[in-house]
Amino acid sequence: MSIVVSIPARKTVDWWCEMLTELMPDWDVYPMGEEPDPAGVEYALVWRPATGCMSGYNNLKAIVSIGAGIDHVLADEELPKGVPIIRTVGADLTQRMREYVALHVLRHHRDMPAIQESQRKSEWNQIVVPPAPQRRVGVMGLGNLGAAAAQTLAGLGFETVGWSRSPKDIEGVQTYAGKEGLGNFLSGTEILVNLLPLTQHTRGILNADMFNRLKRGASLINAARGPHLVDSDLLGALDSGQISNATLDVFHIEPLPSDHPFWLHPNITVTPHIASLIDAPTGSKIIAANIIEFDKSGTVKDIADASREY
Amino acid sequence: MSIVVSIPARKTVDWWCEMLTELMPDWDVYPMGEEPDPAGVEYALVWRPATGCMSGYNNLKAIVSIGAGIDHVLADEELPKGVPIIRTVGADLTQRMREYVALHVLRHHRDMPAIQESQRKSEWNQIVVPPAPQRRVGVMGLGNLGAAAAQTLAGLGFETVGWSRSPKDIEGVQTYAGKEGLGNFLSGTEILVNLLPLTQHTRGILNADMFNRLKRGASLINAARGPHLVDSDLLGALDSGQISNATLDVFHIEPLPSDHPFWLHPNITVTPHIASLIDAPTGSKIIAANIIEFDKSGTVKDIADASREY
Ligand SMILES: NC(=O)c1ccc[n+]([C@@H]2O[C@H](COP(=O)([O-])OP(=O)(O)OC[C@H]3O[C@@H](n4cnc5c(N)ncnc54)[C@H](OP(=O)(O)O)[C@@H]3O)[C@@H](O)[C@H]2O)c1
Ligand SMILES: NC(=O)c1ccc[n+]([C@@H]2O[C@H](COP(=O)([O-])OP(=O)(O)OC[C@H]3O[C@@H](n4cnc5c(N)ncnc54)[C@H](OP(=O)(O)O)[C@@H]3O)[C@@H](O)[C@H]2O)c1
Repeated sequence: MSIVVSIPARKTVDWWCEMLTELMPDWDVYPMGEEPDPAGVEYALVWRPATGCMSGYNNLKAIVSIGAGIDHVLADEELPKGVPIIRTVGADLTQRMREYVALHVLRHHRDMPAIQESQRKSEWNQIVVPPAPQRRVGVMGLGNLGAAAAQTLAGLGFETVGWSRSPKDIEGVQTYAGKEGLGNFLSGTEILVNLLPLTQHTRGILNADMFNRLKRGASLINAARGPHLVDSDLLGALDSGQISNATLDVFHIEPLPSDHPFWLHPNITVTPHIASLIDAPTGSKIIAANIIEFDKSGTVKDIADASREY
Repeated sequence: MSIVVSIPARKTVDWWCEMLTELMPDWDVYPMGEEPDPAGVEYALVWRPATGCMSGYNNLKAIVSIGAGIDHVLADEELPKGVPIIRTVGADLTQRMREYVALHVLRHHRDMPAIQESQRKSEWNQIVVPPAPQRRVGVMGLGNLGAAAAQTLAGLGFETVGWSRSPKDIEGVQTYAGKEGLGNFLSGTEILVNLLPLTQHTRGILNADMFNRLKRGASLINAARGPHLVDSDLLGALDSGQISNATLDVFHIEPLPSDHPFWLHPNITVTPHIASLIDAPTGSKIIAANIIEFDKSGTVKDIADASREY
């Protein structure tokens, strides 16, 4: 029973190998490529794996994504076909995303960027905004993370709407589904939160056309994946005032290149992909439990559906 | 039946007179001092009234504070004795305070000041903090505003503790009361939120001694009144690192003088007394309803108890 680990940063690979060995003493854990026999490898634990890196393993029972998204796994065009992909989710991830979304929605709602700008000028500038029940916030994607985020926003008092592929029923949240529901979801929305998975249907979904359907001066929070956003469309919408402010946690290239215009844009808050970064000890426990469970029963709750790409 | 209005800004007085006249068409509303006959005045609506300004009115049935606190009324040493003071509270005020407290607790919890500092340097600096259930937040004052704020924080997942004069029972919140309870309330608290009324017992309560009983590196949020805080003690605690960050909404002198060291302190966020600023149309409706109700029944829910100063 052996597991191989592939992550771009070598130091991180070593950390995961040690931690999993500790949590799964009956298993052999190797950095990918350093195992004695590829035929004996049953599980691959990966984050942004290199193209083709898994093709030599013919007896893989499952691929484990370190993270909730599987887009980084499917990006490998030579991915072995038919191997189940286990994604890493759990209460800790959901908790952290709820916090991030609440924080950044409240920041935009209460116009903290303008208040902080006034502070820099030592200016007492009493900005009064409407209370949350008069502010419409929209959450795109109502899965593990989006549903919890939407409920949290409703609990804070916001008029909360949500959008997903299939219809959903979430207390306190007005939900819309599919292409038919998109127009009504966007119309009147003042703060838009993206928590969609990255698929062929959602790539580039945060574009000028969508921005134009929001209330003028809306704010955008992208906590899902960089390629959901058309960067130049956001810059244009900020210039025109259609979008007034954005908080971005994810980017086409990460780390965000130091000369990217987002870094110093006065109306963009950049956070370094930390919306819901599980601390490694918690994450490794979830992953060890998932592998052990999958190996015993042949399934776990958090298997992704590769055909729909999430 | 007449009402007089006293507020430092004359333009605001005129606005209130117009608005109340509209909402209470049977009543006469005058800027204080411009009424035809002081003996006919039954209600005084005040914000930071000047000393002695109410002493000429011998038939006052009640004084109405524009705001939840009555400290600014009691500050008038010549205040007519025995006249009930009606404070202005309500769902809107509570909602806004809940938002403010959630926003600023989350900002400190997720270390936004450091993340924004990294952004200014175009630095990708992944700060991972523990999730909210591992963060202890303490709310001082569990009245209308404090109880709602504490419940909101518990709903966001924080380990939430609260402190008040008399014992309280609030779901999801560990409560402590009185001087005996203060030590346990403070010990281990990492983010402290002040929502006490300003009285002789609470003036200067946010001082070096209290800061030293918090967890090292704690954050402070003062959304109640400026004189709760000993300004120099906060500056000292920030210097020593006992307190790492503070958000202040209220100050000894407001507007905060432009040369005050708080404005440009790297670890202080200044907000201009907007934690829960009711918009005037909503506030005037609450006040009109309270006066009409008091005049009919001789009482309302929101009467302050002058003997305990809140
Ligand atoms: N920034 C970070 O730190 C961070 C951390 C973790 C995750 N993430 C991102 O967050 C994403 C969401 O995670 P999750 O666990 O909540 O995912 P999930 O449980 O798979 O939920 C995905 C949601 O998106 C909806 N959806 C998918 N395709 C759609 C389409 N074409 N149109 C409309 N709705 C669509 C789904 O609809 P149905 O319910 O109808 O299937 C579902 O509600 C991840 O994929 C990842 O990219 C970011
Ligand atoms: N920044 C802003 O925008 C803003 C807006 C509105 C209000 N405020 C401030 O917020 C304050 C609180 O408002 P509120 O409506 O929640 O007040 P409240 O309903 O009167 O509640 C006051 C709370 O403080 C407790 N308390 C009073 N004296 C105490 C003492 N010596 N030791 C321990 N606890 C004590 C009370 O205990 P008991 O429950 O045992 O009586 C009560 O729980 C106001 O007085 C005002 O100064 C600020």
